[in-house]
Amino acid sequence: MEQLSVTRVFEGDLHRYQHSSSSTSTDMVFAIYLPPQAKNHPVPVIYWLSGLTCTDENFTQKAGAFKMAAQLGLAIVCPDTSPRGLDLPGEHDSYDFGSGAGFYVDATQSPWSDHYRMYSYVVEELPALIEGSFAVSGKKAISGHSMGGHGALVIFLRNPGAYTSVSAFSPIVHPTVVPWGQKAFQNYLGDDKSQWDNYDATLLVQQSKVSDPILIDQGSSDSFLEEQLQPDHFKAACAKANVPLTLNLRAGYDHSYYFISSFIDNHLEFHARKLTG
Amino acid sequence: MEQLSVTRVFEGDLHRYQHSSSSTSTDMVFAIYLPPQAKNHPVPVIYWLSGLTCTDENFTQKAGAFKMAAQLGLAIVCPDTSPRGLDLPGEHDSYDFGSGAGFYVDATQSPWSDHYRMYSYVVEELPALIEGSFAVSGKKAISGHSMGGHGALVIFLRNPGAYTSVSAFSPIVHPTVVPWGQKAFQNYLGDDKSQWDNYDATLLVQQSKVSDPILIDQGSSDSFLEEQLQPDHFKAACAKANVPLTLNLRAGYDHSYYFISSFIDNHLEFHARKLTG
Repeated sequence: MEQLSVTRVFEGDLHRYQHSSSSTSTDMVFAIYLPPQAKNHPVPVIYWLSGLTCTDENFTQKAGAFKMAAQLGLAIVCPDTSPRGLDLPGEHDSYDFGSGAGFYVDATQSPWSDHYRMYSYVVEELPALIEGSFAVSGKKAISGHSMGGHGALVIFLRNPGAYTSVSAFSPIVHPTVVPWGQKAFQNYLGDDKSQWDNYDATLLVQQSKVSDPILIDQGSSDSFLEEQLQPDHFKAACAKANVPLTLNLRAGYDHSYYFISSFIDNHLEFHARKLTG
Repeated sequence: MEQLSVTRVFEGDLHRYQHSSSSTSTDMVFAIYLPPQAKNHPVPVIYWLSGLTCTDENFTQKAGAFKMAAQLGLAIVCPDTSPRGLDLPGEHDSYDFGSGAGFYVDATQSPWSDHYRMYSYVVEELPALIEGSFAVSGKKAISGHSMGGHGALVIFLRNPGAYTSVSAFSPIVHPTVVPWGQKAFQNYLGDDKSQWDNYDATLLVQQSKVSDPILIDQGSSDSFLEEQLQPDHFKAACAKANVPLTLNLRAGYDHSYYFISSFIDNHLEFHARKLTG
């Protein structure tokens, strides 16, 4: 691991590292915020998964989360959203597929399957690296935005017991039926749509035994709400499966980090109840 | 005025506008955050002046200021840091002069004097526009970062009574003796160094009758501290002039918006005591 920078924030430290990833066979960059409490004892971790076009820096620069993280004693880890430094055919042609748009899946289709393995990276490789390298406890939660909200819900649902809680902002809850998800899954996972179901939170939650509440915030003025996000699918699936869901529809808010910043403290407090309780 | 966007943040609204400026003879863009209280009564305004290379967006995206602004009922206005859309000789050649580096002066030297009139823009034109267009009271304070900290201190000191309070992060307090200031003032103001003194906070404060505290935060690990910032000059001048100064040297913090975000709430509370008291 190579340290790219360390920056004091709210008496804690924001680190950026680059490392050679066995999951993606590329270098990967991630950020970790260590709150001041980490100087004295291991702290729990929230993994934050960003949305389309983002890197590790969108959340760290724009979410305004570190005041509350420092207060609650939470580390926050922000991975990148895809492998970088490649030049696969079509990889850089669109904002919603390829670079910056890994969709937190393990691709099975050529040429993506050699590198676009963000599911394994986030679920296995990154936590092992974090827990082996920093003053963190084994306790972890997961959250994210849009494509990253999809990733957080899927990873939580597929790994019972690994994360104490999950939350999401403006998540893509049902990717198999919306354009963003269909485009990505067709290219990364191929024609066999049964493989797509493993990455669809609305389908996964119906087979889950989740008993603790899931938290979702969604802006009512989000321009992607009707075509790409459709949280009512997830709401109906949770109701069917008796999974407790708090879905806050926030009047007038859009899809941006201004929306996230307005409610991130609520999400951190939600996770802290389980992580530090 | 043309509205470029409006975004809900912490139950208030962040607006961006473009307008034709009589000061700069160009279009200018500014942002204004109106807290939720502005729906019910006029609110006071903090003017925020950004640093080198910045636009109106650095503060709005990265400072994490809107939670406290919403709580305290403060509007925040963020102008751009220079005229835009010109192509004067050498204007875009360096990060510390020309575009993004107006230094909040009224240039007297050709070709800058026709457009680089950020002092008049910030002191006269912008407040008149804001007060004529939005639900704001006449009360205003001023703050800023680096080049913008210089601008805030100079504007406060040259306009007694116009602003209820001033604060700054990592300000260029004595531009006439440091490379950033000397380069800018030589080009904008010419060879007659007596003209430079009108824009030097360390010189101006010695002729002032300020009786309320000035607040400055400075990171101890700021890479520009020794060569460009040198807050001890301002501290000595304040002591000589019996001007009360709170100068917080913050251990380990750098020059970035991560530093600003860590202490912006203190600054908003400092200004609110005068603005809403």
